[in-house]
Amino acid sequence: MSALINKQFKLAARPVGMAKRSDFTYAETPAPTAGPGQLLIKVLYISLDPAMRGWMNAGKSYIAPVEIDDTMRAGTIGEVVASNHPGFAVGDFVSGSQGVQSYALSDGKGLYKVDPKLAPLPKYLNALGMPGMTGYFGLLEVGQPKAGETVLVSAASGAVGQTVGQVAKLQGCHVVGIAGGADKCEYAVQELGYDACIDYKRGPIFPGLTEHCPKGVDIFFDNVGGEILDAALTRIRMHARIIICGAISQYNNTAPIAGPKNYLSLLVNRARMEGIVVFDWAPRYGEAVKALAGWMAQGKLKSKEDVVEGIETFPETLLKLFSGENFGKLVLKV
Amino acid sequence: MSALINKQFKLAARPVGMAKRSDFTYAETPAPTAGPGQLLIKVLYISLDPAMRGWMNAGKSYIAPVEIDDTMRAGTIGEVVASNHPGFAVGDFVSGSQGVQSYALSDGKGLYKVDPKLAPLPKYLNALGMPGMTGYFGLLEVGQPKAGETVLVSAASGAVGQTVGQVAKLQGCHVVGIAGGADKCEYAVQELGYDACIDYKRGPIFPGLTEHCPKGVDIFFDNVGGEILDAALTRIRMHARIIICGAISQYNNTAPIAGPKNYLSLLVNRARMEGIVVFDWAPRYGEAVKALAGWMAQGKLKSKEDVVEGIETFPETLLKLFSGENFGKLVLKV
Repeated sequence: MSALINKQFKLAARPVGMAKRSDFTYAETPAPTAGPGQLLIKVLYISLDPAMRGWMNAGKSYIAPVEIDDTMRAGTIGEVVASNHPGFAVGDFVSGSQGVQSYALSDGKGLYKVDPKLAPLPKYLNALGMPGMTGYFGLLEVGQPKAGETVLVSAASGAVGQTVGQVAKLQGCHVVGIAGGADKCEYAVQELGYDACIDYKRGPIFPGLTEHCPKGVDIFFDNVGGEILDAALTRIRMHARIIICGAISQYNNTAPIAGPKNYLSLLVNRARMEGIVVFDWAPRYGEAVKALAGWMAQGKLKSKEDVVEGIETFPETLLKLFSGENFGKLVLKV
Repeated sequence: MSALINKQFKLAARPVGMAKRSDFTYAETPAPTAGPGQLLIKVLYISLDPAMRGWMNAGKSYIAPVEIDDTMRAGTIGEVVASNHPGFAVGDFVSGSQGVQSYALSDGKGLYKVDPKLAPLPKYLNALGMPGMTGYFGLLEVGQPKAGETVLVSAASGAVGQTVGQVAKLQGCHVVGIAGGADKCEYAVQELGYDACIDYKRGPIFPGLTEHCPKGVDIFFDNVGGEILDAALTRIRMHARIIICGAISQYNNTAPIAGPKNYLSLLVNRARMEGIVVFDWAPRYGEAVKALAGWMAQGKLKSKEDVVEGIETFPETLLKLFSGENFGKLVLKV
């Protein structure tokens, strides 16, 4: 085992604004050896998520921040290459949170076996992973969509958005996306089945909202915040549900974040705005995976990943999320 | 009847910022005569409410705006002085929306008889009227309080707040108010039974929130918006409910209103923010009046009005709401 090299990014500093390479320390060290009860995982794919930016900040959030000098936290798919653990054998593929590194020890806690014959491994970081779980429970449980309702989704072709939009269509909803660029919008409509998609890079989204949501918006699933949220608030219908999943437009702010100026639309429309954190739904992940994998097998659900090769590119690849450059769920192939 | 004079305020202009006397036209004209099926009401008390400021603006809200040259809309308590309507007799007291005038015709629609022997008439514009209904259904139905939870109420001694605070105590909650000035805070604690009340005029409310809501806030009933809402968002607990009833701090803004900068606390805490408009609960007003009147009869619920005499003072008296000068539900005695 001593020939194995662990390539690893640790958090070096709390970023101000956008994260940059100097906020991390890169090191290559000999991979550790599995002790009693442990297994060694070779990390194959690393999930890059907007939430990672929040984990780099100090202070209380829905999970503890990454501490300085700790390995950067990340969801991963890996292969067991050594095991002293009765539950895992060499050759098993596992989903977990092994962080931005190429080898990791584990005691088995928080690991789930995944089957590469059922779906390609990167899908387990997308529709069959955290983004899929987030979209599934956020839409169905927090949003409570009814057939015929209008569902609006920001970051429509992104990791969470693609599941939300397709599951909303499967519920019989009229589904409108918001995405950045003609290619993403075309993909949302042609491949994901959105009824329409508004390109926010072409200008203000108000005209598109009026055109494509003529009855108003019953459910807004928001991954973006900022001006997009403000615009959507002007179009909500009575008893609308706004699901706050994220606010990627605000994560790199150095000033206080922009609050939704039009929040009194909640009052006028007796609407509610509610946050979702996927971990709350962990006891029901199995149910969601079964439903989503079933739709995938029937060709009713697609899942698009943007796979970038080379763990060494991590700091720069992460930034694609915030510039909107990624197209589909961003995954780093180690 | 021709000797009766109707004193009346009509909307003359849409205010910019605070409403002022020149935004209204005052006129004295002969009171009208009841035609077939009509009754003539002598208005005795006029309800002055923060929502009136919104009604003066153009544009869609939860009800239509008051049009220029229309009588200014207001809730009222009056006495029937002439009737050609089978459902109402001279001497009946009625609650309705007769507007800012001393005499009004009605066809009986939207009128409710009230009993001055059960409660003094101004109470029917307060705990037994719209503010009471708002507080009752907003807290109990939107907020769903459970015994032992912490309930925070802004404008704690105001028309809606006083009902919210007292009903929350009756549910076994720990109840903390926010009000402006030592006298209002003292009243909230000594008379209304709040466990504590934070005086926002003394400085930032954060220390008071930390001291008096040590476990955090389960329900925030907000009548104020702005900085108070932002501060409260920093103290909410998991699965908190924020009831958006109003935003009096923002109603006279000439700039866009301030959105809640800390709204992502909804995400971190899986909390929801939801608007209430009292009219939705009209079919259940009877239930609320019965409960509230029952508590009043048992001495468990107080209701404080700030009664100002003279319909002629309407434009200036209305402004007491926005300066926070009123102490209790503001009522104009005609």
